[in-house]
Amino acid sequence: MAYTLLVRHCGQLLTLAGGPAGRPLVGSHLSSWRIIPDGYVACEEGRIVAVGPMHELDLSQVTAGTAIIDARGHVVMPGLVECHTHLVFGGNRAHEFQRKLEGEAYLDILASGGGILSTVRATRAASEGELLDNAMHHLAGFRRYGVTTVEAKSGYGLDRETELALVRVAGTAGHRQEVRVVRTFLGAHVVPPEYKGRPTDYLNFLATDVLPALRGVAEFVDIFCEEGAFSTEDARAYLAEAQAQGFRLKIHAEQLHDLGGCEMAAALGATSIDHCDYLTPEAAARIAQLTAGQTVAVLLPLVPLFLRQEKYAPGRQFIDAGLPVAISTDFNPGSCPSKNLWLALSMACLKMGLTPLEALAAVTLNAAWAIGQERECGSLEPGKRADILLLSVPTYEEIPYWLGENPVQEVIINGVRMERPE
Amino acid sequence: MAYTLLVRHCGQLLTLAGGPAGRPLVGSHLSSWRIIPDGYVACEEGRIVAVGPMHELDLSQVTAGTAIIDARGHVVMPGLVECHTHLVFGGNRAHEFQRKLEGEAYLDILASGGGILSTVRATRAASEGELLDNAMHHLAGFRRYGVTTVEAKSGYGLDRETELALVRVAGTAGHRQEVRVVRTFLGAHVVPPEYKGRPTDYLNFLATDVLPALRGVAEFVDIFCEEGAFSTEDARAYLAEAQAQGFRLKIHAEQLHDLGGCEMAAALGATSIDHCDYLTPEAAARIAQLTAGQTVAVLLPLVPLFLRQEKYAPGRQFIDAGLPVAISTDFNPGSCPSKNLWLALSMACLKMGLTPLEALAAVTLNAAWAIGQERECGSLEPGKRADILLLSVPTYEEIPYWLGENPVQEVIINGVRMERPE
Ligand SMILES: [Zn+2]
Ligand SMILES: [Zn+2]
Repeated sequence: MAYTLLVRHCGQLLTLAGGPAGRPLVGSHLSSWRIIPDGYVACEEGRIVAVGPMHELDLSQVTAGTAIIDARGHVVMPGLVECHTHLVFGGNRAHEFQRKLEGEAYLDILASGGGILSTVRATRAASEGELLDNAMHHLAGFRRYGVTTVEAKSGYGLDRETELALVRVAGTAGHRQEVRVVRTFLGAHVVPPEYKGRPTDYLNFLATDVLPALRGVAEFVDIFCEEGAFSTEDARAYLAEAQAQGFRLKIHAEQLHDLGGCEMAAALGATSIDHCDYLTPEAAARIAQLTAGQTVAVLLPLVPLFLRQEKYAPGRQFIDAGLPVAISTDFNPGSCPSKNLWLALSMACLKMGLTPLEALAAVTLNAAWAIGQERECGSLEPGKRADILLLSVPTYEEIPYWLGENPVQEVIINGVRMERPE
Repeated sequence: MAYTLLVRHCGQLLTLAGGPAGRPLVGSHLSSWRIIPDGYVACEEGRIVAVGPMHELDLSQVTAGTAIIDARGHVVMPGLVECHTHLVFGGNRAHEFQRKLEGEAYLDILASGGGILSTVRATRAASEGELLDNAMHHLAGFRRYGVTTVEAKSGYGLDRETELALVRVAGTAGHRQEVRVVRTFLGAHVVPPEYKGRPTDYLNFLATDVLPALRGVAEFVDIFCEEGAFSTEDARAYLAEAQAQGFRLKIHAEQLHDLGGCEMAAALGATSIDHCDYLTPEAAARIAQLTAGQTVAVLLPLVPLFLRQEKYAPGRQFIDAGLPVAISTDFNPGSCPSKNLWLALSMACLKMGLTPLEALAAVTLNAAWAIGQERECGSLEPGKRADILLLSVPTYEEIPYWLGENPVQEVIINGVRMERPE
């Protein structure tokens, strides 16, 4: 079969391929990446079938039916993988912004019934159609930044009906447009008013009455392990039960305190451990050892920035300790209302000491690992989905450099050229 | 004459009008702004002729020839004024990003012949056509963010021929597309290699051999008053001479040290004092008093962020002391390669404690004051140029809230609807 799509004259083709088999990229692996000067990517329907330098292009596969895109010397790379979002919610919390600007702490806002619980109220009050409209709006926003796969968590329902609806909406949104959606159940986001003071009872309710309805629907089960949310002990029991029911695991941990949640979840074989602002490099080294570099630390640099907390995960030290890292926005209405994953990438360089290449791996292949999609996306390799970005810059160093800008010129998903970002 | 353009059903029309006559907005003035719910803006050719609530719209002026834009309940506001950029330069410094990530200080990079001097080499080596292409590219980028007026400084030539070329290129770029360009001469950016160790001689050369050629061409003369650049004493003499030759004044001061440059320039009647990261609130109060609130402090929050210095101008205290503030990116290849003025606005809230309304005034009316354009732009008032933005959000609080995003849906310059941002 001839190529259906050819992207040619890619000034730098960032394949992200060539790392160790069966593991995310970390540290020295990065030097083994293939960055191909004057490269091409060829696709047949929705899949990549060949990648290489232009002088190796098999012209016999290029026919009148081949759509050709000339990258004119610009960077071409895999579609971004956004591996941690709270995509589906009602309302927004712009009105709380002022309180944060006045210095009020996140946990204080939470304690006063504001914060997450105000989003829970708005989400419960919204119709499924409204929630879907919002999710579609935000997915379109992500796509403008070149995000082609998004993880979406529930967690603003906190009752059976609404939580199931949130997972359903994420699925529907994934089917109604091109960006792929991977679903995570985060019913254990915070204790709902109905279970105030009874976190264990709430988790038991989730495990018994909700999780069974999500088998084969949500891929991951996640929990917020933090003061004011769920203890490490409760989280361990809940995650172990979720694992027994067949779910893969994630955790929100060490965001505001070091409660040992990351290490606990890693010991259970969690696919990702997220936030990690208070995770020590020593614990990171133990986790890397324990999991043979399989568990990915998902770092969320826009969250401390937006919360004015300025305590960032020591990403540089994690990598040096052998722990692979991914970067995400944590898009949500409370602690990070940003879909600009490029800004998160720059902030990971500036605030966490990642190199540009490490940061690029962190929003592509490692992010794919963090949501179990490493065989489908995150790199430009034959067999993977044809999710490809053409950027406006000629070298990868310029990507984090043009701070806050969107370098995306063209987005290809599943071998299909999307409309240009508006 | 009938309206040629009508923007109607503006959910919130941020006029920025209603402040004190003859002065930028500061502190309590903000409450006197007119934010009109369900408002309209009407234009005749390139000028605004009427602004008000929809129920006061004079329908007799709306004819078949009136172009009508329905804002569908979204925020409508004046075009952004970007009041401090180094628009025209050769090359970029993405390769230095890595050095910064490794913790090298700005002044050390500067001292090693990197930093600004590498841009000087690239700028001198570029043809005027290349410089113009770059400037046009960056102006198009600014326009996508809704910037309709840009101040552009020279300063990467540091010899007579190149500096004059940079001012000329800024002027040509301003005429070749719609965004207005206001020109500032910053030959006194740093001491060029040819004058190494002789800053006073260099300034005398500029004053004698270059400034006379710029009368009626550049509006402002600016100087970088800082350790490693020019002393406060030399800067005073140079600015006084520039003023005697008929130029209005600006200064880069108190970016890295408190040398008293801001207060010195304010005493000379400078239109703006820029950076101010090390300016004390006490000095800010003296400046506000001395200048009767006419001199604007231009704050550049993306610079400490990009330089990893985390020492931000105390904008909140400046405003409380009566000193009006504007916000800008400081777009330049070394210390802030960002054209995302919306990100700067959010950072001014997060890092400098501005309220959303103060930050909005700081990128519109106060920014217009900072470049002497207060009678032309910066607010939606009859008689001003019809530079108008339609945003994607329904309330102004959402503008800084959606961190790092570009809320611009539609840009109108001089009464003409631009193509949608790509
Ligand atoms: Zn989260
Ligand atoms: Zn500057």
